[in-house]
Amino acid sequence: MTSAATRRIDRAEAQAVLAAQPFSVLLGTRLAGFGDGTATLELDFRDDLLQQNGFLHGGVLSYAADNAITFAAGAAAGPEVLTAGFTIDYLRPARGAVLRARAEVVRAGRTRVVVRCDLTVHPADGGPGMLCAVAQGTVSVAGG
Amino acid sequence: MTSAATRRIDRAEAQAVLAAQPFSVLLGTRLAGFGDGTATLELDFRDDLLQQNGFLHGGVLSYAADNAITFAAGAAAGPEVLTAGFTIDYLRPARGAVLRARAEVVRAGRTRVVVRCDLTVHPADGGPGMLCAVAQGTVSVAGG
Amino acid sequence: MTSAATRRIDRAEAQAVLAAQPFSVLLGTRLAGFGDGTATLELDFRDDLLQQNGFLHGGVLSYAADNAITFAAGAAAGPEVLTAGFTIDYLRPARGAVLRARAEVVRAGRTRVVVRCDLTVHPADGGPGMLCAVAQGTVSVAGG
Amino acid sequence: MTSAATRRIDRAEAQAVLAAQPFSVLLGTRLAGFGDGTATLELDFRDDLLQQNGFLHGGVLSYAADNAITFAAGAAAGPEVLTAGFTIDYLRPARGAVLRARAEVVRAGRTRVVVRCDLTVHPADGGPGMLCAVAQGTVSVAGG
Repeated sequence: MTSAATRRIDRAEAQAVLAAQPFSVLLGTRLAGFGDGTATLELDFRDDLLQQNGFLHGGVLSYAADNAITFAAGAAAGPEVLTAGFTIDYLRPARGAVLRARAEVVRAGRTRVVVRCDLTVHPADGGPGMLCAVAQGTVSVAGG
Repeated sequence: MTSAATRRIDRAEAQAVLAAQPFSVLLGTRLAGFGDGTATLELDFRDDLLQQNGFLHGGVLSYAADNAITFAAGAAAGPEVLTAGFTIDYLRPARGAVLRARAEVVRAGRTRVVVRCDLTVHPADGGPGMLCAVAQGTVSVAGG
Repeated sequence: MTSAATRRIDRAEAQAVLAAQPFSVLLGTRLAGFGDGTATLELDFRDDLLQQNGFLHGGVLSYAADNAITFAAGAAAGPEVLTAGFTIDYLRPARGAVLRARAEVVRAGRTRVVVRCDLTVHPADGGPGMLCAVAQGTVSVAGG
Repeated sequence: MTSAATRRIDRAEAQAVLAAQPFSVLLGTRLAGFGDGTATLELDFRDDLLQQNGFLHGGVLSYAADNAITFAAGAAAGPEVLTAGFTIDYLRPARGAVLRARAEVVRAGRTRVVVRCDLTVHPADGGPGMLCAVAQGTVSVAGG
């Protein structure tokens, strides 16, 4: 029997969920990787995503962390997941062309999944990224 | 002599900083209260701020927490502040008409300000709000 | 029918749980208040609880936060609770005679309780305390 | 010129600091690894470190995380460091013979060091460990 906690979703389902999030559409978020308890989201820097000093707004980074954490949990525990909370530590101002949030499940329990996330910024030419924030969060599994 | 850590900013300055944040303009954030180590930000629910189930996206809540925490620190420690990190715990799905993030400084040190934030959702008619998330964060004071 | 999530424990039960924690006995923790979704733990400063500069070790504060958060959740949601995680921000070095950790439930859901905790240090004469750390945590309710 | 932020401490100095922490002596903590922005602390399970169900008390894990995070920051940024705060997520009950907390610096800035920590429990025979908690913290560098 397949429980909510063990049925994993595939990349197409994850892509459909992301496309069904109007806020992710507004920010232009892409699913850049998915599976095996990991999820990678990306979005391009845009003028309307910045703060007053020209860096990516911290709220964009926290959104990306929140969402990548949720998707990574979905990759491990199925669609009935809800982020319970997370912590983010900013490391340096985020400037570049692309923000990437890569989340990886640390432990998937029956009712609770713990996930870590690295946030990196990348130049337009695809050069090496720079770590700009790290996050750690907990996702609740419904019916777990 | 006025140091960065002791010069506080007033509501007009805070309003100007918020207006200079393109991401806050994109989300329609308003400064609803400011002063004495507190800051209150508000934004209206809009279709493009939701997630796939019709609730306000967690990333909008985390943005509001991040920003309210930064502004409250500015109310206590001046303009040269930078949010170092924060934790957010979601309490219930956010549905309503207005999101309010009220942050209050717990302790303003010379180099570091610790802030708590309550996130509430309110109906359109101005009725009582419902607590939907709580956050706690740290803000670094430049030159502190 | 009384579920795990709704049966609350009383002060005598809480006292018995605390007495059954060998680590709390080692540290000399007392239950100083309990009920209505709050719990207050206290312990006396002792030479063997300090760090290298003569302040109470941060690990004693984090222990007290962890435990007070769990007990406050027990006051709201019954005995079948388990702390899932917490965040602590230290505000100033802890020196004094008594450490007090007062935790209060922010929201008690069916499966998850969110709690905030203030940690204060107090002089031997019972004078006013000084806030030295703040914490926020999540407690899982078994069978919730 | 060597600043507080750049002078790193060596293993002997770290060992001396640990020995000068009465609370670490009380818990029997050993320095099991140190250097290159990492620190590993270990302690043996003892009856007086448990909670009411026979597992290692969460407060022992949070102490170990707090201390390992501080030592790892010291390995990167010198002796004038002070843990500002941290988050811990518990993954499973801690039972075994030895608790190990391994912390690693994610980013060492001039005034602030961000560190992650894995907490594992190990059987007496030195067999493979089990991850029982993960933490993420921030350490302030004095005079940074």
